[in-house]
Amino acid sequence: MSLKEIGEFGFIKKISRGCLIRPDTIVKAIGDDAAAFKSDPDQLTLITTDLLVERIHFLREAISGFDLGYKALAVNLSDIAAMGGTAREAFISIAIPDDCQLDYLDEIYNGIKDLAARYDVNVLGGDTTRSKIDLIINIVIQGVVPEAEILCRNAAQPADIICSTGFLGDSKAGLHLILNQITADSQVLKSLLEAHNLPQPHLREGRFLARQSGVHAAIDTSDGLSSDLGHIVEESRVGARLYADKIPISPSLKNFCARFDFDPVDYALTGGEDYTLLCTIAPERAEDILHEFEKTFKRPLFVIGEITADKQLTLLNPDGKTKPITPTGWDHFKAKDNE
Amino acid sequence: MSLKEIGEFGFIKKISRGCLIRPDTIVKAIGDDAAAFKSDPDQLTLITTDLLVERIHFLREAISGFDLGYKALAVNLSDIAAMGGTAREAFISIAIPDDCQLDYLDEIYNGIKDLAARYDVNVLGGDTTRSKIDLIINIVIQGVVPEAEILCRNAAQPADIICSTGFLGDSKAGLHLILNQITADSQVLKSLLEAHNLPQPHLREGRFLARQSGVHAAIDTSDGLSSDLGHIVEESRVGARLYADKIPISPSLKNFCARFDFDPVDYALTGGEDYTLLCTIAPERAEDILHEFEKTFKRPLFVIGEITADKQLTLLNPDGKTKPITPTGWDHFKAKDNE
Repeated sequence: MSLKEIGEFGFIKKISRGCLIRPDTIVKAIGDDAAAFKSDPDQLTLITTDLLVERIHFLREAISGFDLGYKALAVNLSDIAAMGGTAREAFISIAIPDDCQLDYLDEIYNGIKDLAARYDVNVLGGDTTRSKIDLIINIVIQGVVPEAEILCRNAAQPADIICSTGFLGDSKAGLHLILNQITADSQVLKSLLEAHNLPQPHLREGRFLARQSGVHAAIDTSDGLSSDLGHIVEESRVGARLYADKIPISPSLKNFCARFDFDPVDYALTGGEDYTLLCTIAPERAEDILHEFEKTFKRPLFVIGEITADKQLTLLNPDGKTKPITPTGWDHFKAKDNE
Repeated sequence: MSLKEIGEFGFIKKISRGCLIRPDTIVKAIGDDAAAFKSDPDQLTLITTDLLVERIHFLREAISGFDLGYKALAVNLSDIAAMGGTAREAFISIAIPDDCQLDYLDEIYNGIKDLAARYDVNVLGGDTTRSKIDLIINIVIQGVVPEAEILCRNAAQPADIICSTGFLGDSKAGLHLILNQITADSQVLKSLLEAHNLPQPHLREGRFLARQSGVHAAIDTSDGLSSDLGHIVEESRVGARLYADKIPISPSLKNFCARFDFDPVDYALTGGEDYTLLCTIAPERAEDILHEFEKTFKRPLFVIGEITADKQLTLLNPDGKTKPITPTGWDHFKAKDNE
């Protein structure tokens, strides 16, 4: 069955199945001019949106429909996580070129619904249309956060310790495999591919951090550690010192870097799309929070540096020497090698 | 100054100016992982989203940046209007191809901000990225509506009268001029172009209708009268009879149709993108509402037909003959001449 046979409205009916997993507060889901629902009156509303374009953010031939849908939703959920919020409703806009098969589209929605169900998120609406050449997906997430718990980029304070909720650099290694068409011939390489294609939004970690007193600023690592930390220090008008030997490198990335002769710390600093959370914590609260995090999630909250008053971003090497870090941010327009 | 010179973050700073026109309930606007704001606890939240793709929805060479931005926002505001809601926050995602000039982008945001300010809507966030070839704009609107006042598609009842808040078919005539590169050499043709490029969202009309008891169903005319009314009758499990001689045709469309030898009623039935509201009203409330509408808006609410129990969609001609209407909906995938 092709998209042309079932048409736009047939397609919408098809994808609507299984979208509403938490109907309690929903008045109108897919099928009217807008979705209508009750928002939690005691919490702030959060809204984030991300636009993914074929040949800029993904290569259709290099990613399964399932992984594409899953990842498109994950990167948006990660933004809600970075605010300390709970994700509630998702809206999917898709523009489909003629050569895109219905099976591939089905898999995109399967990937979206799979991840949405894990985090109790309804798919409440969106838009379905055509595109001339590139497949385009825009996702919007509505979420909530108690006002007193919101985590922002501009709240880091000098002497805060800087933490990451997971390993850094794995996603960039996975991207390297894809762009260089290297077969994932081992479990190690497969795990790096998975880090790139099926990132986990740290929503539970975000809620955990938001509830703790002493957690000041947070951001998700979408553009790369140096760039994302750059946003925190710029918005907070502070600086940061990272400890090169404390940056969490997964065993898989160590193995990959040894095999292909890359520097893992460079991968962690410049690689984007890890979707861990970076946060800054008042030093007197750090011990308790690190302990509680490990108890809750059965893995460490990695301490990777400290906030400074000097507005510099530096890397402290194990030999005691420091060097400046230039945020090599994922700027979609400035750099030439950003695809 | 080019986009490459100022970069993504320079561009975001540039477009952020003048986005926040109603700061009272906003905790975080552009510049964090998500926007955060207080939603009205006494009302339902509405969210709608539309994805516009170059060469499917618009031709960049045929529309000014200002008109494109204005229209992209207008079509979304129209969806909030059709639910009887008040629009509150807007989120703009844009994917920009390399050949798109900064001046054109500036004009897009000028068009968006111009219309947003007229309806008291903040531009609170979005996403900025690249595209290989086509310019892509996705807009999301968050709005509110009192639960008792929400207008849905599925609430039409037999014997309801069907009304339109404005003229129908003008936008299709404007599109005809563009696609056939006909110079708008008169005020008449200019007004049709304007109907296509600068549609007015009927937000005030939507709120007016939502507040009246007896207004049952509503939808905006985005796909064409036959198709949009088709949605109401299908969702409400009823039928409708339209009066051919009551369908509101503007003097400009009459003039255009006489000049180019088209049937104005056909234009009204099949033309999309008028963005008036269609609504159905209990017959006993019609007189009062029509009177009050005209008093408020200084123009009539046009009665165009009635809801029937028979699940048919028919057109009643002045000679007393009826013929079936086939909803020639704007299906993005099925038809071949839909561009």
